[in-house]
Amino acid sequence: MRGLDALMIAPKINLSWLARTDRVDNYPGLKEVSGADLLKAFEDQAASMGAQTMHGTVRQILPTDSGFMLLVENDVVEAKTVVLAMGAAKPKLLPGEEELIGAGVSYCATCDGHFYKGKSIAVFSENDQGVEEAEFLRDIVGKMDYYPVKKHDVPGDFNVIDERPTALYQTDGGVGVETKETKRSYDGVFVFRTGMPLSMLLEGLAMQDAGIAVDRSMRTNIPGVFAAGDCTGKPLQVAKAVGEGNVAAIAAAEYIQKG
Amino acid sequence: MRGLDALMIAPKINLSWLARTDRVDNYPGLKEVSGADLLKAFEDQAASMGAQTMHGTVRQILPTDSGFMLLVENDVVEAKTVVLAMGAAKPKLLPGEEELIGAGVSYCATCDGHFYKGKSIAVFSENDQGVEEAEFLRDIVGKMDYYPVKKHDVPGDFNVIDERPTALYQTDGGVGVETKETKRSYDGVFVFRTGMPLSMLLEGLAMQDAGIAVDRSMRTNIPGVFAAGDCTGKPLQVAKAVGEGNVAAIAAAEYIQKG
Repeated sequence: MRGLDALMIAPKINLSWLARTDRVDNYPGLKEVSGADLLKAFEDQAASMGAQTMHGTVRQILPTDSGFMLLVENDVVEAKTVVLAMGAAKPKLLPGEEELIGAGVSYCATCDGHFYKGKSIAVFSENDQGVEEAEFLRDIVGKMDYYPVKKHDVPGDFNVIDERPTALYQTDGGVGVETKETKRSYDGVFVFRTGMPLSMLLEGLAMQDAGIAVDRSMRTNIPGVFAAGDCTGKPLQVAKAVGEGNVAAIAAAEYIQKG
Repeated sequence: MRGLDALMIAPKINLSWLARTDRVDNYPGLKEVSGADLLKAFEDQAASMGAQTMHGTVRQILPTDSGFMLLVENDVVEAKTVVLAMGAAKPKLLPGEEELIGAGVSYCATCDGHFYKGKSIAVFSENDQGVEEAEFLRDIVGKMDYYPVKKHDVPGDFNVIDERPTALYQTDGGVGVETKETKRSYDGVFVFRTGMPLSMLLEGLAMQDAGIAVDRSMRTNIPGVFAAGDCTGKPLQVAKAVGEGNVAAIAAAEYIQKG
């Protein structure tokens, strides 16, 4: 668009509500379409206009002198502007989790895995991406327990703990994991959810009601960061999301062009 | 929608930019579609969801105790809420026109025609709707000059003045019409344009930059009045307009349901 490069970063498997919706009647222009077909039409059209796609979950967005650095699982992506469009789902933290971030709790295998060489860790994972991260970690750490927090295929040689973590707490030099059944202690805990809590994703991002605060040009409070769709709040509708994406993309392009 | 009745009021012939656009590439979901086909798809879908359509130009919106009264050419429509979506085109007034509103200049044959029984009037018209209004007026007034301001078919028995009005001015008990060629005086002047100047359409409506001022729920400064699309300002894009329409419709429905 406008001679600029657009990169869409999204999980390989679309876990959004829309992807699981059998029938959408109220998206103007397409009568009675499945959510999956609608998403496919959007993706194909974006690709035909030159947008690139990268599969993965963005773990963190860091402002730099020239724009932003995005940690996408094991990769780093640089961008001049960012449009947040991660939908309405808000990962819920466990009790005790927030206090232990950077003090035993991590969301990035590549970033923090090497701190746990030969040590014991727990991995909480919601999906296949967590499996990949765990496979990476397993080669570094001494001992790894894998907690499949949501149902997904897990390699047979993982040491699976089929209990639901209910809380985290600080132990002497490590992290305690509480489940309904018992308590266990580890040197560290890695958490892989479908999305990242916003406060972890991008520091200082202002919220309003249940969504990211934006103005009519879809600008957030952080210069160069825009937001669109369900993550900005109600109504949670495809047409609203598409319209906001349209406005955010144009505003982001203008932000770059104005230098 | 939501057990409420929705009425779309629009000119019979769509005069928007979109209707005249050969090809739209960037409306998500429909690749390479003509503007006319896109509008047709929107209209059909709205109709299939139960929206009614009425053809005509809204000349004025008046707040009442229970909502709003809309003057639509020769009809009156009552509504609990109004969503303004008249696009970006802004009718330009002639020099002197604003000062003479209600003092010789009118935009509504039904409302004001009877004041000119047996008298002389000028009709400035941009389109076929002006012809219809003029036919109504001709049976009331004594003398009528018809100025076709934009090209359209005019009945052979109209007294056509093929000059472009350039200004209006007050005369002794009437209105003077100035053209490049000459000046003529009438008891009254009726102006029929494709749209109405906003200040005439709805008194007290707040503007921001070049558009109607709205918040993130598409509320205007007038309770019960919402706005969506190009009339709220840039970017002038179909997806943005559709998204705003989505938000405005939901906000309007909630406004009614909250009573």
